[in-house]
Amino acid sequence: MAKNFTSRQENYSEWYNELVIKADLAENSAVRGCMVIKPYGYAIWEKMRDALDKMFKDTGHSNAYFPLFIPKSFFSKEASHVEGFAKECAVVTHYRLKNDQDGKIVVDETAKLEEELIVRPTSETIIWDTYRNWIQSYRDLPILVNQWANVVRWEMRTRLFLRTAEFLWQEGHTAHETEQEAVAEAEQMLNVYRIFAEEFMALPVLTGTKSPNERFAGALETYCIEALMQDGRALQAGTSHFLGQNFAKAFDVKFLSKNNTQEYVWATSWGVSTRLMGALIMTHSDDNGLVLPPKLAPIQVVFVPIYKKQDELDAISEKVNQIKKTLVDKGISVKYDDRDTQKPGWKFNEYEFKGVPIRVAIGPRDMEEGTAEVVRRDTLEKQIIRLDELENFIPKLLDEIQDNLFKKALNFRETNTFKVDTWDEFQQQIEKGGFILAHWDGTTETEEAIKTATKATVRTIPLDFVEEAGSCVFSGKPSKGRVVFAKAY
Amino acid sequence: MAKNFTSRQENYSEWYNELVIKADLAENSAVRGCMVIKPYGYAIWEKMRDALDKMFKDTGHSNAYFPLFIPKSFFSKEASHVEGFAKECAVVTHYRLKNDQDGKIVVDETAKLEEELIVRPTSETIIWDTYRNWIQSYRDLPILVNQWANVVRWEMRTRLFLRTAEFLWQEGHTAHETEQEAVAEAEQMLNVYRIFAEEFMALPVLTGTKSPNERFAGALETYCIEALMQDGRALQAGTSHFLGQNFAKAFDVKFLSKNNTQEYVWATSWGVSTRLMGALIMTHSDDNGLVLPPKLAPIQVVFVPIYKKQDELDAISEKVNQIKKTLVDKGISVKYDDRDTQKPGWKFNEYEFKGVPIRVAIGPRDMEEGTAEVVRRDTLEKQIIRLDELENFIPKLLDEIQDNLFKKALNFRETNTFKVDTWDEFQQQIEKGGFILAHWDGTTETEEAIKTATKATVRTIPLDFVEEAGSCVFSGKPSKGRVVFAKAY
Repeated sequence: MAKNFTSRQENYSEWYNELVIKADLAENSAVRGCMVIKPYGYAIWEKMRDALDKMFKDTGHSNAYFPLFIPKSFFSKEASHVEGFAKECAVVTHYRLKNDQDGKIVVDETAKLEEELIVRPTSETIIWDTYRNWIQSYRDLPILVNQWANVVRWEMRTRLFLRTAEFLWQEGHTAHETEQEAVAEAEQMLNVYRIFAEEFMALPVLTGTKSPNERFAGALETYCIEALMQDGRALQAGTSHFLGQNFAKAFDVKFLSKNNTQEYVWATSWGVSTRLMGALIMTHSDDNGLVLPPKLAPIQVVFVPIYKKQDELDAISEKVNQIKKTLVDKGISVKYDDRDTQKPGWKFNEYEFKGVPIRVAIGPRDMEEGTAEVVRRDTLEKQIIRLDELENFIPKLLDEIQDNLFKKALNFRETNTFKVDTWDEFQQQIEKGGFILAHWDGTTETEEAIKTATKATVRTIPLDFVEEAGSCVFSGKPSKGRVVFAKAY
Repeated sequence: MAKNFTSRQENYSEWYNELVIKADLAENSAVRGCMVIKPYGYAIWEKMRDALDKMFKDTGHSNAYFPLFIPKSFFSKEASHVEGFAKECAVVTHYRLKNDQDGKIVVDETAKLEEELIVRPTSETIIWDTYRNWIQSYRDLPILVNQWANVVRWEMRTRLFLRTAEFLWQEGHTAHETEQEAVAEAEQMLNVYRIFAEEFMALPVLTGTKSPNERFAGALETYCIEALMQDGRALQAGTSHFLGQNFAKAFDVKFLSKNNTQEYVWATSWGVSTRLMGALIMTHSDDNGLVLPPKLAPIQVVFVPIYKKQDELDAISEKVNQIKKTLVDKGISVKYDDRDTQKPGWKFNEYEFKGVPIRVAIGPRDMEEGTAEVVRRDTLEKQIIRLDELENFIPKLLDEIQDNLFKKALNFRETNTFKVDTWDEFQQQIEKGGFILAHWDGTTETEEAIKTATKATVRTIPLDFVEEAGSCVFSGKPSKGRVVFAKAY
């Protein structure tokens, strides 16, 4: 399976595209820009979703569900929002098909909607229209709601997981009494995303705010987590927005405050999507295929028997099923692949390509010696382990792999983060890739000029921003400190 | 809260509508026919979804995700399917909006899709178009896939949960080598639905097949679970379809068989939706509000402290938190409502209305005596229970409530199931409600005539159909046995 597989060196972009298809994660569908998420890919997404969902609930949020469709007029209500979202979108104009004279199926022109409906690209408008009825007084606040849903943005150039017309995501939408509380919520959820990325995805991320130019349409502040992929390009992995009172004003959502005054409600929204799958794949995988952090691997350990005769298989199966049970009781997801339709070598390749963290092979000789061959996917290192030690060894090795993947990715990011002080250096380094720490004069004009010249953008103004007087790498104007530039997905 | 609440006797339909709104389950949105599922309603749906999802996985199924949009031409490929589904649907015709001269947002007529896209009303067509590439030989079979998704059917008359333009559901789509295997799958999933309805929803259901007239568009056989609501009307709660080779033929999905021949693949599909929420509500709830079976209750037990002074509250809180911990450790969902903004009486009403299975009230006097007042929601019966017995008493009482709700509903169904042998009796009984067991000649013509005369339809031909010679209650023609008639939601 790993044969005929493009290496990262040859063509990183092609490597990614092939990997997604060949590892059975997703594929393009008959509908332009819409993907099919295959069972193996979806199983990884389910693990992400469940972990995030638990973190959302642990921080006091509940799930709810709002309509797929948004009346066109809703988008006009928040001025900057409409610019950002209402343009490239799927528009529902009719609600019936009919047979024409030739028996062909055509749109029934008499069934035209009075007002067109937009398939949600994001749900601030419909949700704030709803919140108006939910909120009368401060006693109704805060509202801490999240939605797991599909959304549609009519992208022209699409790539599986990274940019698709339809994608799956979660969108949190919260309502608060005070500005302070809303800002704290936006920051809390950014932190939830950071912890999730680090602890589950083994993905080191920078946390910070976006420049005004890169802000969410309608937000006063956009917080983000930014990761660095193996080709040196950045990927925005999640955002959390402080929306101020913009949507409350647009949808007239006021509350009676404790001081008996009518006030507009303060808002946040925050989301991550199936794009995280792209980040996960691009961060850890290698020229042998997918590499998955154990916490998100649908299969954490696979056992492969090696045998010639039925009685050999029977003895191995008995032993494996015994070990499997103890591992499953510890919450580990184990597969025993005793299919006789495929050879062990084929199975080794298959599970290696699909990123199963640990592979255990047991043959008759191992049975005699009471050992097994254990191969970890991250380093491909082989070890001989005593069978009676497996139940303790495997959980420890899973933890070790999880840690190792994070450290490796962190090390990659650190060695690919550069302080740059001149425009020449900047241009050279941007071509090579990586995060660039450089002074910026803080204007949108300069940001745009840098983007035009190099395709690089301000990825984030770090939360741990250090005041440091300097001059902008492009304009030479004064700067208060370094921000993070990169070319991005 | 229960005041100004319509009783079932007064107006069953109004009672339902009010209950859904007042218990914070769902509400109508700004988009015609689309509902907002509120956090409390969604929490119940999540419990249903999780229980079903586990049952699907335990029977070997995996989840996947397919596009929201379906090209119009796909619907024409399966002749009966298009009749059933492609007519009342949301049609996407454009992919861009723009500002007109006045700055108003309008559809950009230059951004017209070459082929219109239909928002999925069900996914057989797009999924079988995908399966064509997944299936080459018998080794690729079976495919056992399920999808959790939103779907849209442009209903003219909508009711929260029961019939909405957009709803949430799961749709299983499986592919098999043989007819026998596909039929077994369809029957297995019907059985999964029956067990789920009985064991989680405490909902007794009849299992059987549909008459040809009521079959799913494109199916050779539709199996269903049918429940009886408190007003004597039936509700179809889930369906499982044996699709034969219809979709394989329509989308040219063949496989190389073990005998080295090219064969069309056999298919099933099966689904339940947020409509189950309607069934749940209408089966158990009463004039005091919602009644939830413990297995699906977001809050299973609520503790309410009764106190005047802070030190009384402190003592109660300490005790409750202790008991709560032991209950939570047993997997029970417990809420301790120690808010000082509401009086105990208000809280009692609130939790009663929201169907929390068990309420425990503890005051200073109880503390002295080492007891608590326990009220079960299903019977509203009060009991005094020793505090140190609560941790054992509550789990048992939850089981008892779950059982009792099922028995009560089963008893209701049994006393509202009638054998009827004459057309006069039939017409009279149909007006009163209930399941009617009557002879039917098996023709669509008679079924239609009965429907026109009484609004009743054949709900199901029971799986445990008993051969019994008789004459059709309407036509007098020979019949082989009784089928189940009712007026239905």
